[in-house]
Amino acid sequence: MTTFYRQPVHVARGEGVWLWDRDGRRYLDCYNNVPHVGHCHPRVVEAIASQAATLNTHTRYVHDLILDYGEALTAKFAAELESMVMVCSGSEANDVALRMAQAMTGKTGIIGTDNTYHGNTAAVSQLNASKVPVGGYLPHVRRVAAPDNLMPVGGDRATQAKAFAEGVARAVAELEASGHGVSALIVCPYFANEGFPTLERGFLDPAIEIVRRAGGLVIADEVQPGFGRIGSHWWGHQRLGFAPDIVTLGKPMGNGHPVAAVVTRHEILTRFQEAFKYFNTFGGNPVSAAAAMAVLQVIEDEALVENARDTGAYALGLLEELAARHDVIADVRGAGLFLGAELWRDGKPATALCAALVDEMRDRGVLLHSVGRHSNTVKLRPPCVFGRDNADMLAEVMDAALGAVA
Amino acid sequence: MTTFYRQPVHVARGEGVWLWDRDGRRYLDCYNNVPHVGHCHPRVVEAIASQAATLNTHTRYVHDLILDYGEALTAKFAAELESMVMVCSGSEANDVALRMAQAMTGKTGIIGTDNTYHGNTAAVSQLNASKVPVGGYLPHVRRVAAPDNLMPVGGDRATQAKAFAEGVARAVAELEASGHGVSALIVCPYFANEGFPTLERGFLDPAIEIVRRAGGLVIADEVQPGFGRIGSHWWGHQRLGFAPDIVTLGKPMGNGHPVAAVVTRHEILTRFQEAFKYFNTFGGNPVSAAAAMAVLQVIEDEALVENARDTGAYALGLLEELAARHDVIADVRGAGLFLGAELWRDGKPATALCAALVDEMRDRGVLLHSVGRHSNTVKLRPPCVFGRDNADMLAEVMDAALGAVA
Repeated sequence: MTTFYRQPVHVARGEGVWLWDRDGRRYLDCYNNVPHVGHCHPRVVEAIASQAATLNTHTRYVHDLILDYGEALTAKFAAELESMVMVCSGSEANDVALRMAQAMTGKTGIIGTDNTYHGNTAAVSQLNASKVPVGGYLPHVRRVAAPDNLMPVGGDRATQAKAFAEGVARAVAELEASGHGVSALIVCPYFANEGFPTLERGFLDPAIEIVRRAGGLVIADEVQPGFGRIGSHWWGHQRLGFAPDIVTLGKPMGNGHPVAAVVTRHEILTRFQEAFKYFNTFGGNPVSAAAAMAVLQVIEDEALVENARDTGAYALGLLEELAARHDVIADVRGAGLFLGAELWRDGKPATALCAALVDEMRDRGVLLHSVGRHSNTVKLRPPCVFGRDNADMLAEVMDAALGAVA
Repeated sequence: MTTFYRQPVHVARGEGVWLWDRDGRRYLDCYNNVPHVGHCHPRVVEAIASQAATLNTHTRYVHDLILDYGEALTAKFAAELESMVMVCSGSEANDVALRMAQAMTGKTGIIGTDNTYHGNTAAVSQLNASKVPVGGYLPHVRRVAAPDNLMPVGGDRATQAKAFAEGVARAVAELEASGHGVSALIVCPYFANEGFPTLERGFLDPAIEIVRRAGGLVIADEVQPGFGRIGSHWWGHQRLGFAPDIVTLGKPMGNGHPVAAVVTRHEILTRFQEAFKYFNTFGGNPVSAAAAMAVLQVIEDEALVENARDTGAYALGLLEELAARHDVIADVRGAGLFLGAELWRDGKPATALCAALVDEMRDRGVLLHSVGRHSNTVKLRPPCVFGRDNADMLAEVMDAALGAVA
């Protein structure tokens, strides 16, 4: 695996928003959404330990916990999204979601953005921008220009939604001409890998109308924004104001335990099962269900959506203060505990500077990383137990690190 | 999910070879290879609980356990198989293995058998026999007739290896003619889903020679036979006597924890990473590595390979006694704790009878299932702590159940 940072972190212990390396040095974790309710949260640990000691089978038997979890999870969605399949990773979830759309529409074409990542299976990695697959992109995949704050589609933020929809319309026309037809538009509703541009509510509506008119479905990949991270809502698609046909979940769902899910309408799941007879040995096994249930309960009991909203707003304010003092910060944006600062210098995206800042902050005990088309946006996505004192430390260290590297 | 049995088992608790339903009824588990070292083995539970309480991150950091596990696992293979990628499921492992072969050979063609299952991702399910994928099988996949004891390829068991190799040769010729070329032959070296026919050592050699001459690699899917289940060896490919380029591991690896792996040569892993920049968030996280390490240690400390060999031989003897008394048992076969009894009646595979027997035994407190092209082979694949007294109970109940349904 490729590790993060010039000097990789050799981790040994975690708790809440903190990681310790094997030399006992402490790091403030401003990056990891996997430990969504905090590293090693005792209620999640206890749920895993207790269920692992009681029963952990494959999923050909009936077990109460997966049923209870399915009800608890789907209660967080619109009424028609009442069915769930549990899998092991966000990659598996998106791999299933794409086939659900195929099974439901009888078509194969997929539309994504040109600067995204939805996972690592062969089928899903066809959508990835970071590396052209061996043998090239397959003809059923179309990639449209992703929205952006500083380099908007069509050159103007005011008309970006229309320009994005025009890109989708061109992709639809191409897929219909090639005989694939449109099975789905798949997007992260926060456009996380695209650098989470600031989008008005309803941004996707024109694009979605075009996809639906062509008979396609809409898949919301909630692996990054989901489970309340964005503060204002539980899910990114609620914030952007659209109704997906299929939702995929991943990283934060089990606080690090390998569990993920697809949530959809009953009819879509039925058609998928008729077409594929899908079965997942580990997906939703009793321990996975226990871990996921504990995460849901902790989010509620510790009011972590509210914390994401409040601490996120406070941290955003600190970033804006930094931007006023550091010219290289060209844009500050985000929602809840998913924030960023985009760096530019000499009228260009400051990719190398951003990499240097990431390493400098790691050396100063704060973990974060970069994102976006030019990897020039600092990506802040800490565990949702992140507090104001943590935000203060982040801002102080970023201030000093920018002074050192800019 | 589709559950097993006419009347699904509503499981509540597990220990060793036993499962209890929520009414407190006990079942002898003769089927599950996921709890490889026994349901809820205390050392695996403790490893998971302890590591989950200490640290569980994604895999962009360095962590000792994944390195230690990689060394311990690859030590169980031939010297050149020294590299490992950890993933979350056997499906992800095979999905990666197929792309490793593509990256290494620059070709895309894949050859499997016509009655197999290698997992549930879109790419891997192209190899599955149970359901034709939406849009049909893709042209880079070729399926050759699988070996069989009672209906051998070419009609004669003595020449089955040659007939199988001729099938592979035809597939190679087709893939070369279509311009795909041959990237890999992928097989379970125990042909588990094909009904685990009895094969002589060297059975695959003629087929492998043809694949290698065409520039292709050989992938051994060890998800079912691996980790010593077959008693005579740690891995199915060692038993059959061939040297795979890539090995995939899954279900038993973490005793139920979602962890899997691909083991290969350093050069193949390097070429794969150059081509794909693969990353897996959960694969090989500290808890997954801890679970997998505990399983390896328990196999050694409790001599479970030896137990699989000895108890398996004892159980096979009991099945042979049953076959002498029940005409419907047309064949008894297997190795270690991976055994089967194939049912025929009136000169035909007894599919309905086998299903009735499976349900009858479930009702009598013994869990097993069917396998093979006609689902007429009873599949016995219990946790490897299965003992002689468990084998006695299995044989007694099967005797009575056969009497009731045959």
